[in-house]
Amino acid sequence: MEPTTITFARGAPSLDIVPVEDLRAAAQSAFESDPKGAFSYGTAGGYGPLRDWIAERHEADREQVLATNGSMQADAFLFQLKVQRGDTVIVEAPTYDRTLLALRELEADIIAIPVEPDGLDVDALAIALEQGAQPTLAHIIPNFQNPAGATLSLDKRRRLLELATHYDFTIFEDDPYGELRFEGESLPTMLSLDTENRVVYASSFSKTVCPGIRVGYLVGPKATIAAVEQRATATYISPNMVAQAIVADFCRSGALDRSIEAVKVALRERRDATCAALERELPDASFTPPEGGYFLWVDLPDGADVDALSGAARERGVIFVKGTDFGGGLNTLRLAYSGVTPDEIDEGIGRLAEAYRGLSVAAA
Amino acid sequence: MEPTTITFARGAPSLDIVPVEDLRAAAQSAFESDPKGAFSYGTAGGYGPLRDWIAERHEADREQVLATNGSMQADAFLFQLKVQRGDTVIVEAPTYDRTLLALRELEADIIAIPVEPDGLDVDALAIALEQGAQPTLAHIIPNFQNPAGATLSLDKRRRLLELATHYDFTIFEDDPYGELRFEGESLPTMLSLDTENRVVYASSFSKTVCPGIRVGYLVGPKATIAAVEQRATATYISPNMVAQAIVADFCRSGALDRSIEAVKVALRERRDATCAALERELPDASFTPPEGGYFLWVDLPDGADVDALSGAARERGVIFVKGTDFGGGLNTLRLAYSGVTPDEIDEGIGRLAEAYRGLSVAAA
Repeated sequence: MEPTTITFARGAPSLDIVPVEDLRAAAQSAFESDPKGAFSYGTAGGYGPLRDWIAERHEADREQVLATNGSMQADAFLFQLKVQRGDTVIVEAPTYDRTLLALRELEADIIAIPVEPDGLDVDALAIALEQGAQPTLAHIIPNFQNPAGATLSLDKRRRLLELATHYDFTIFEDDPYGELRFEGESLPTMLSLDTENRVVYASSFSKTVCPGIRVGYLVGPKATIAAVEQRATATYISPNMVAQAIVADFCRSGALDRSIEAVKVALRERRDATCAALERELPDASFTPPEGGYFLWVDLPDGADVDALSGAARERGVIFVKGTDFGGGLNTLRLAYSGVTPDEIDEGIGRLAEAYRGLSVAAA
Repeated sequence: MEPTTITFARGAPSLDIVPVEDLRAAAQSAFESDPKGAFSYGTAGGYGPLRDWIAERHEADREQVLATNGSMQADAFLFQLKVQRGDTVIVEAPTYDRTLLALRELEADIIAIPVEPDGLDVDALAIALEQGAQPTLAHIIPNFQNPAGATLSLDKRRRLLELATHYDFTIFEDDPYGELRFEGESLPTMLSLDTENRVVYASSFSKTVCPGIRVGYLVGPKATIAAVEQRATATYISPNMVAQAIVADFCRSGALDRSIEAVKVALRERRDATCAALERELPDASFTPPEGGYFLWVDLPDGADVDALSGAARERGVIFVKGTDFGGGLNTLRLAYSGVTPDEIDEGIGRLAEAYRGLSVAAA
C-alpha cells in the first residue's frame, strides 16, 4: 500500500485547529441579530460592524477600512490601482509566489531585495533607490514572512518608512500572520508608525478564523480606500455579507481571541517538531526557526538540487514547495508546518531526509 | 415630519421575502456535515457539491460549472477573458447599467440593439451583422429583462443561436431572474438549446436565496470555464466556501424550492399592485406587465422629462432609476417592485403621479 502523502506544501491550517463550534455559534448569532445586514446587498466597503471592529483594532476610521473576499482580492484591487505597466515595484526575495505572478501579469518592473533573518535588507534597498530606482510600491510581509519566516525588525520598519517618504513610494504592508506570534515581542505595524500616509496595510481572517470564510481587508489613507471601493463596486457590488457578519460576531464575542490562542499553541508545537526533526534527520539543512506563522525556510548546501529532491520526495509521499517558486535559490525550499501534526511531521521529515540521502549518494 | 422614502430604485428583495430561518438551518447543517469543505480553502471553481447541483440542474458536467462571489464577479471574469479593447460587443437597449459600465471600462465597441416586448430585435441584429458588424460576444438577459421586463421568445432564442454560429460569436446568457416566472410558460435556456458550444450562461442565488450570500455561477464550454478558473485562482484562490456550502445545503434540502415559491407569490402581488396603481394614478404611463422578475419599464409620452420627474419625485420621497441610465430614452424609467410591499407601492405610485402632474402643469 502507498503511504499516505504528507504535505508541507500548502499554507493552510489543518481542520483540527479551525474553531468549528465557535463558527456555528457565530453564524447563528449573526443571522439572528442582524438578518438584514447579513442577507442584503451591502456596500463595497464591507459589512459595517466588521469595518468598525477592524478600524478600532488599528486605531483608524471606518473610511480607512475596506473588507474584501479574502486578502488576495484586496491585493488585486490595490495592485490594479497602484501599478501601471512598466511601474517599478519592490518585492522581497524570496516572496509569496502569487504576489510575483500578479505583478508579472500587470507587467510591473520588479526589483527583488533580499530578505535577511531580520527582514528586508533595507541597506540594499537604499542603494537601489540612490542609484535611481523609482518604485511606486514596495510589497513587504513584515511578520513571519512567506516563505522565509523572517520578521522585519523595528529599526528596519522605521527606516523603510523614511525611505518611502523620501523617495515617494507606498509601502504595502501585507500582514496575514502578524497575530500568530508564539514567542518574542510583537512589533508595531508600519501602519501604526506611519505619519505620512505612506502605508496601505492588508490582513486576513484566513489564519485566525478559517480560510473558507474568505475575508480579508485593507487599512489605508481614505482616498486610497475610496478608490479601491469604487473598483470593488464595479467588480462585485459588495463582498460576502454573510461571511463578514459571521466574522464580525466571531470577533466581538471573544471567539477570535480564543481561536488565536489555540492556533498559536498548535503552531508552536508544529514548528518545534519540524525544527527538531530537521536537526535529527537532515543535518545538512540550515534554517532560522520562525517566531510565529506558518513557514520554515530551509537552505541546503550549495549545489543541492532541490528540483530533483522534490521529485524524489514526492515518490516517498512527501510534498513541499521549491524555493525557486518564490524567487529563491536552487538549493532552498519552503516547509509549511501549519497543516501537519507533530507525528506527521516526524514521519514526513524522515521521508524527506531519506530522499535527500538517496540523491546525495547518486550524485557522489 | 418628512414622509419615509419609498424606493423603486434597487433590484433587491425586501427582508420579508428572504428565507431567514431556512438560511440559519442551512448554515447549521452545512457546518455540521462538511466542516472541512466549508472552512478550508477550496478550488477556484467553487464548492464541489454546489457545482454538482448546478451541473445537474443544467444537465452539464461539473467541469462546465464555475461558482463565483456573485454573478457580477462571473461577468467580470468572462468579460476580461472574451473582450479585448476595441472588440465589438452586442448589448440590449436598454440594458443593465453595470454591464454597460463594465464594457465601457474595457473599451469595447458597444452596439446596442433594441429590446421589443418579446425580447431583442433579432432582425435588427441580423441586419447589423449583414452590414459587417463582427461581435465577439452578445450579452443577453433572456428572462424578465433588466430593465425592460421583456422575455426573449423561443423563436428568437433559436434565431440568435443560428446567428451566433453563422457569424462566430459567443452568446452570454445572463439569467438571474429565470426562476422567478409567476405566469405563462417557462422557455428553455439558450444554453440547453445550444449544440455548437456558443453559449456561456450565468445566474445567481441573489434572487432565490438572498443577495448577501454573493453566490453566482457560470455554465459553459469546458475550455472557457477552465480559462475563467485560472483567472479566478489568480484573483482570490477560491470563492467563499462558507457561503457556497450554505447554498448547496439550501438547494439540496428543498429550501430553495420553497423560497422560490414564496418569492414568486410576493413578486406577483407586487407587480399587480404596481400595474394597478399606474393605471389608476398615472394613465400617461405605458408599460407591458412582466411575467416574472423584479422590474417594470415605463414609457411616458414623448417629451416627458424624466430627469426633472426624478428630482420632483425625490422631493416627495419616492425614488426610481431614469431610463437613460440603462441606455433608454429621456421619457423612460425603471420601477423595481421587488423591495416594496403593496401598501408602499400604492403610496409610492401616488406620489410619483403627483410629481408628474406637477411637472405637466409647470410645462403647460
